[in-house]
Parts: sequence; C-alpha cells; structure tokens
Amino acid sequence: MFKPDFKKGDGLVPAIAQDYKTGDVLMLAYINEESWNETIKSGYATYWSRSRNKLWKKGDTSGMLQEVKEILVDCDDDTVIFKIDQIGGAACHEGYRSCFFRKYENGELKVTGERIFDPKDVYKK
Amino acid sequence: MFKPDFKKGDGLVPAIAQDYKTGDVLMLAYINEESWNETIKSGYATYWSRSRNKLWKKGDTSGMLQEVKEILVDCDDDTVIFKIDQIGGAACHEGYRSCFFRKYENGELKVTGERIFDPKDVYKK
Repeated sequence: MFKPDFKKGDGLVPAIAQDYKTGDVLMLAYINEESWNETIKSGYATYWSRSRNKLWKKGDTSGMLQEVKEILVDCDDDTVIFKIDQIGGAACHEGYRSCFFRKYENGELKVTGERIFDPKDVYKK
Repeated sequence: MFKPDFKKGDGLVPAIAQDYKTGDVLMLAYINEESWNETIKSGYATYWSRSRNKLWKKGDTSGMLQEVKEILVDCDDDTVIFKIDQIGGAACHEGYRSCFFRKYENGELKVTGERIFDPKDVYKK
C-alpha cells in the first residue's frame, strides 16, 4: 500500500485542497500518517492541526466538510493534492471560498476572493 | 511592504505553482525571504532548494522558467500561490507537465499525467 513519505517533514507533508470542479486551490494544510489513513478510510479530508497538535477533520465544527474525490501525489511522494467537493462552498475559517482570497500587488495585499459566510454565525463559542 | 510569515516553518513557507491559465497545480516547493524577494524582483519563480540548501531559480538548468503572473497569499500568511506561465510546458524534472502526475487508487499510484520531455535530453551531465 502506498503512503506518502512522512519522514522528510518531521512526520508531516503538505496537502493542497483543490476544488475538483473549478481547479481553484482552496487551502493548504498538513497531514501525518494518521491523517492520511483517516482520509482514505472516511473519504473526507482529515488534516493534522499544527497549532492544536491533533487530528483535524476539516469541517467538524463548521459542518463544511471536504469530500475527497481524487488524490494526486507528487514526484517526490512528499506533497499530495486532495481534489475535493467543498461542502457549504467555503474552505476558509474567515468565511471565504478559498484561504487564498488576497492578491499581492505592489507590496500590498488586496482582497479579491469571494466571501460565503460570516465567521461569527458559524463559529459560535 | 508585505512579506509572508517565514517564522513558522523555520524560515520556509510552501509555494504552490499553479498554471495561470488552466488552474492545474504544477508543483509545490519552498521559499525563504531571499526567494520571495528574488521572485518579486525578477518576475520568475525562485525557490529555496531544501536538498541543495541554496537559492533555486526554477528552470535555471532546464530553461523551463516560470514567469509569475500573479501571487496569492493565504489567510495565515504562511502559504503562497504563484500563478505562472510554465515556459516549455513542463514543471516536473521527470518530464511531466505537473509533478502531480500520479493518482492514488486502491492503495496504488497510477500515472495519469502528460509527459512533455525525456529528462535524459534535458539534464545532461
């Protein structure tokens, strides 16, 4: 059974979440071996949260799960792409469709992405 | 002047190279502050080679440079997308258009990507 090469990045490799229909890159997070196994088993993107240091099923809090349609692996086995169906239409915790909602221009960042929800409505304490 | 947050990943953040026309993800590599400055200044994707531990202007050996058309930054300032025009049509040192030329299927990897050149013709010793 193939597994990504988790040795290189201290047990973590980057996983790019890409919209399986539009090709838009929605986010990048990290997976460890447990995340990989869980993603394969469940069919939903499951990352490793570096800040909380725990398994992170994307959308567990917000309901905005990522159904994995296809997995691509790079030539060095140390990066993967999850081609996903983003439930709810937004991957970013700030409410944007993509975490990459800002464009660099002449030294500044300019918001160009589409906002889908207000985080205050979704992440209630 | 905006800069990515290089502190988190030991001075490196991942940079996703994405075809500016098709949206295909071609590769992922890492940049440090010097790479960032050089990419902005030159207009060509310049990474940091973790294996060679030096600045790496993509395509310097093969001629297959990456002209940067747009830069997107994620919500945490710790990942960037270079939307590029891939000169020569191939980003992967194995001759494929994309480094993500293999698909994971039932525990195995299956080549699904398009091969543009034979590495033996390009990387002569």
